Amino acid sequence: MIVTLAGGVGGARMAAGLATISDGKIAVIVNTADDFEHLGLAISPDLDTVMYTLAGLENVEQGWGLCDETWSFMSALEGLGGETWFRLGDRDMATHVERSRMLAAGVSLASVTRHLCAALGVRADVLAMSDGKVRTVVQTSDGELAFQDYFVRRRCEPRLLSVRFAGADRAQALPEALARLAAPDLEAIVIAPSNPYVSVAPILAVPGYVAALDAREVPCVAVSPIVGGKAIKGPAAKMMTELGVDASVVGIAQHYAGLIDGLVIDEADRALVPSIERLGIRAHVCDAIMRDREGRARLAAETLGFARELGRRGDWRGPCRAS
Amino acid sequence: MIVTLAGGVGGARMAAGLATISDGKIAVIVNTADDFEHLGLAISPDLDTVMYTLAGLENVEQGWGLCDETWSFMSALEGLGGETWFRLGDRDMATHVERSRMLAAGVSLASVTRHLCAALGVRADVLAMSDGKVRTVVQTSDGELAFQDYFVRRRCEPRLLSVRFAGADRAQALPEALARLAAPDLEAIVIAPSNPYVSVAPILAVPGYVAALDAREVPCVAVSPIVGGKAIKGPAAKMMTELGVDASVVGIAQHYAGLIDGLVIDEADRALVPSIERLGIRAHVCDAIMRDREGRARLAAETLGFARELGRRGDWRGPCRAS
Repeated sequence: MIVTLAGGVGGARMAAGLATISDGKIAVIVNTADDFEHLGLAISPDLDTVMYTLAGLENVEQGWGLCDETWSFMSALEGLGGETWFRLGDRDMATHVERSRMLAAGVSLASVTRHLCAALGVRADVLAMSDGKVRTVVQTSDGELAFQDYFVRRRCEPRLLSVRFAGADRAQALPEALARLAAPDLEAIVIAPSNPYVSVAPILAVPGYVAALDAREVPCVAVSPIVGGKAIKGPAAKMMTELGVDASVVGIAQHYAGLIDGLVIDEADRALVPSIERLGIRAHVCDAIMRDREGRARLAAETLGFARELGRRGDWRGPCRAS
Repeated sequence: MIVTLAGGVGGARMAAGLATISDGKIAVIVNTADDFEHLGLAISPDLDTVMYTLAGLENVEQGWGLCDETWSFMSALEGLGGETWFRLGDRDMATHVERSRMLAAGVSLASVTRHLCAALGVRADVLAMSDGKVRTVVQTSDGELAFQDYFVRRRCEPRLLSVRFAGADRAQALPEALARLAAPDLEAIVIAPSNPYVSVAPILAVPGYVAALDAREVPCVAVSPIVGGKAIKGPAAKMMTELGVDASVVGIAQHYAGLIDGLVIDEADRALVPSIERLGIRAHVCDAIMRDREGRARLAAETLGFARELGRRGDWRGPCRAS
């Protein structure tokens, strides 16, 4: 069994790769701090991206939403003068409507997610990080903004000053997720190549997860979302720069130092291995870009192989145990 | 100015016909007792049918919903195991989502309707009968059922025992609607060929409307939804029979006796003119079936001509004033 912490597209692809090579025996702890209420619907962008990708139904070109999507709803909504900055496809709407209906009926987000995943034939365990309400709020050059307002409506254009996770202190880690992190058959923990600041950080901000990672008895490896100083997808590099952080695999290693045992980086960053290992983090160099489904499985296999090697060599736990 | 009381398809077509011949100078008071909450959305079937038909966007083949509709949402919802007995098209969903959002924000149903009609280019005034919540409940051989459960889910199959309009006693007629019924430029009141028991009766059950009709200074004519003992559309005849009422134009005349001055009936029912006029209601015989858009305008012109003739001859108000 493998547990992965994941956010948007990079996390979803990593999860899909790991599911492929492990016959679905993975649990994915998913960021829900991007969730928001829109048009009266409860929308969970990261849960949906992970779920759709694991179901093989993701829209590859678009990077979010469902394949074979139609847009009649959005076009009619535009005709009615409704809000269309957050694009909702017709098929995708079924997920939001059904989720909203179940939540309103008192079903927990974790149970709703289980139900939706079962309906879509997803075999991996997709776990909302918390049933509590955590919301990413960003301080920017345009003031404080709700995450989707910053991320989608304003396309990350305002300069990022800081990020906070409203409600995280009062939220509780999902008990099933903590159980998976402590399970005897756990083999490795993988931090997916998701945005460290707005996809992985909210998960770690929920009380319970850092302690669970500290108490782990298996290696924890991250896969860098930065390759050659650029984000593979999304605004991670821009955000790191604006936050005054080195937008490189070294910046990623610094960010995760004390938490992870190893970092998977791309060939393009081979020269930075010494800088990473100086932080007490082992580096594994490979092709770290998932270009297609085969690429996902290949990177997942590289990552899992690396974690297993760290485990075999006892070459892990160093950083977080040494302190 | 003409005011018409309307429910579903028959009412919508009559309203569209009247709008055509009067250059949009009509007000349509629409039944909202069919409204219901479904999948977390506020759905107003009769308002939508009237609005879509007046906008020229109605789905003629289907008899409800929008033309050029797509069904991706419904098909995806089915895949998720959601409730699909009430069919919601993708474009239609925009209406329900936008209405639900506005109602949740505290906007009145009347204002929401005005907004949606303006967006769709509807020039006629479409007036929800009340901003209050009135709900049609039917007693049937299968027990008490909410209207859409009876009408759509069970296709009117259970035997109808009685109909009540929950909340009608506490509801208030829409002030704009009462103002229209008392306006100095009002020329006629038309009760559309809607189902008398579940489309027109709920409007009349809201305190204010019967008094407004009684106080009218113009003729009030109804158009029969029954032709040759059969409903033109829908279950009106079946319902009348189950309620122990004569499923004929005479049954319609008896139902509206004391309320209307004239009844428009089809050629097929010419022989029943004496039975209608015996009730103190003038009868006008013509082709009373609206087969197409031309048919709507023709029937609307026949109806308005009939009302004007009653007005000219002073041949009205007899029944309701005599008592």
